[in-house]
Amino acid sequence: MNQDWTVIDGLQYSAWSREIFEQMHEGGLTCVHVTIAYHENTRETLTRIGEWNQRFESMPELIRPVYEPSDIALAKAEGRIGIIFGAQNCSPIEDEIRLVEVMRRLGLMIMQLTYNNQSLLACGCYEDEDSGLTRFGKQVIKEMNRVGMVIDMSHSAERSTLEAIDYSERPVIVSHANPSHFHPALRNKSNKVIDAIAANEGILGFSLYPFHLKNGPKCTLDDFCDMVVWTAERMGIDRIGLGSDLCQSQPTTVLEWMRNGRWSKTMDYGEGSSSNSGWPDSLSWFGDNRDFPGIADALSKRGFSDGELSQIMGGNWVSLLNRAATPASPFLQHP
Amino acid sequence: MNQDWTVIDGLQYSAWSREIFEQMHEGGLTCVHVTIAYHENTRETLTRIGEWNQRFESMPELIRPVYEPSDIALAKAEGRIGIIFGAQNCSPIEDEIRLVEVMRRLGLMIMQLTYNNQSLLACGCYEDEDSGLTRFGKQVIKEMNRVGMVIDMSHSAERSTLEAIDYSERPVIVSHANPSHFHPALRNKSNKVIDAIAANEGILGFSLYPFHLKNGPKCTLDDFCDMVVWTAERMGIDRIGLGSDLCQSQPTTVLEWMRNGRWSKTMDYGEGSSSNSGWPDSLSWFGDNRDFPGIADALSKRGFSDGELSQIMGGNWVSLLNRAATPASPFLQHP
Repeated sequence: MNQDWTVIDGLQYSAWSREIFEQMHEGGLTCVHVTIAYHENTRETLTRIGEWNQRFESMPELIRPVYEPSDIALAKAEGRIGIIFGAQNCSPIEDEIRLVEVMRRLGLMIMQLTYNNQSLLACGCYEDEDSGLTRFGKQVIKEMNRVGMVIDMSHSAERSTLEAIDYSERPVIVSHANPSHFHPALRNKSNKVIDAIAANEGILGFSLYPFHLKNGPKCTLDDFCDMVVWTAERMGIDRIGLGSDLCQSQPTTVLEWMRNGRWSKTMDYGEGSSSNSGWPDSLSWFGDNRDFPGIADALSKRGFSDGELSQIMGGNWVSLLNRAATPASPFLQHP
Repeated sequence: MNQDWTVIDGLQYSAWSREIFEQMHEGGLTCVHVTIAYHENTRETLTRIGEWNQRFESMPELIRPVYEPSDIALAKAEGRIGIIFGAQNCSPIEDEIRLVEVMRRLGLMIMQLTYNNQSLLACGCYEDEDSGLTRFGKQVIKEMNRVGMVIDMSHSAERSTLEAIDYSERPVIVSHANPSHFHPALRNKSNKVIDAIAANEGILGFSLYPFHLKNGPKCTLDDFCDMVVWTAERMGIDRIGLGSDLCQSQPTTVLEWMRNGRWSKTMDYGEGSSSNSGWPDSLSWFGDNRDFPGIADALSKRGFSDGELSQIMGGNWVSLLNRAATPASPFLQHP
């Protein structure tokens, strides 16, 4: 893997530790989009941000925050992993439009409109009925466009996703999911959605979460490369990146929080099932951040050029953030 | 009043409107330290910040945020009033040390450790017993020093104030109060306190709130100038500024929120009394922001030089903020 590349993983949620950040360095990462909220409300999200601030303070030689797209180049130059804050749900803004700007100023650069369920903004991928964007949802999209917060539809339902892409004036992303064509998981995306993302100049980040892959944990690196080749042809080489969905060293209580939050008294198994309720087994070729160079090598053997690989491994994410995560108004005073 | 001066008012809490911001321009103000919280908890403080963001968005020709001391010069150059966020209480950080940095990043530049009552940090000026800084209080002072949030002891009790000055490694301020020597209100400050503020290279901001002045609303501009002359001699010309405590166009419900918050079921009258429960009458010579030039003129007639006046009218505040409101650590990533 070329040391000059800016390598970005489009989603991780691990039990953060010095060891994991060191693995990111070993794996040649430049930046990682980390989840700071699943169901956390506004107040709880501030506690999550406070925990990150303490990590930045105690491990300044390993990590730094990325508040603006221009911070990515600083992270690269300093040799520190840049941490990009994202929320997998709109719970951090509760019911208040003005919290979009407040959260953006605190560094929240990416936000999903829904996480599996109906939210105040749109519909999630596990609901039976998808009635599309809500009134509040349209307001929030406009505001996210204004302040430069990227709209992520990874866990959203199809109609809501297409409407968000249509309504947003800036590119919309799917930070971590795969084409349903490759594996028809409910969380993966139809050709209609990936075509809309491509037309909108967004990004699809390939997930390495076994439930999103053909044959689950047994998916081979060759299968994965097949998917990348197919998607690059369909969406274009500029429209793809990585979004590993790596959830390293997390206890099952965290999986339960992700799946059940506070919304269900009976266990919901998400992409698993009652007989397969825990974390899936790892892929043999992707266990932690040190395995990114192996993916780049495999894609290189499939014929992607060095220039194309630098785009897939992170360059496309840099371009996307420069187009979607900068404030639209010169009067916005962050940072 | 010299147009080249940077004129700063060290405290206001008005019913903000276009008219008031226009009056600030007419009065030659550069920046105003505005109160964003009295008893607001963390979540409620974000709503207050959101309301300010909406004002910045809708009146960009009149106002701009001051997130860092260096923004003061920008405000001056742009001809926009710089708004400095402050809290009159520690309620915005609740019981969480890490919220100091979170709030600082949102622009909270100044915070009082107490508002009249005992807080989690220290004791307020209306309690019977003052046991000084708490354990949490000491931690918060250290953290405020680190992130560059100015410690304001305007509403604190004497022992707590002296201990905070002693414990803090950066200057401590009293943004809005007068020497008890001039008028012995409970809220005003003893010679011991103002001497400690002076030794600590902080600032005393002269209050124009009638309850803090000799003869209340009947206090003359001459009386006020007497106080300034006396204090300048005692504390030094570098240690004084203005902190008008202007509460313009606020209904009495706001006065009740300031005084009673959620802590009392029976009405507490603060500096007033049951027979004098409302806002005090205005001074004849200070009704709103257009009256600052009159104060400068009166002080000039008392013999302050132009250089001294530029310090009193705002220069000292700029110096103080540069010494106390910049982050102590190079790894702090705000703004």
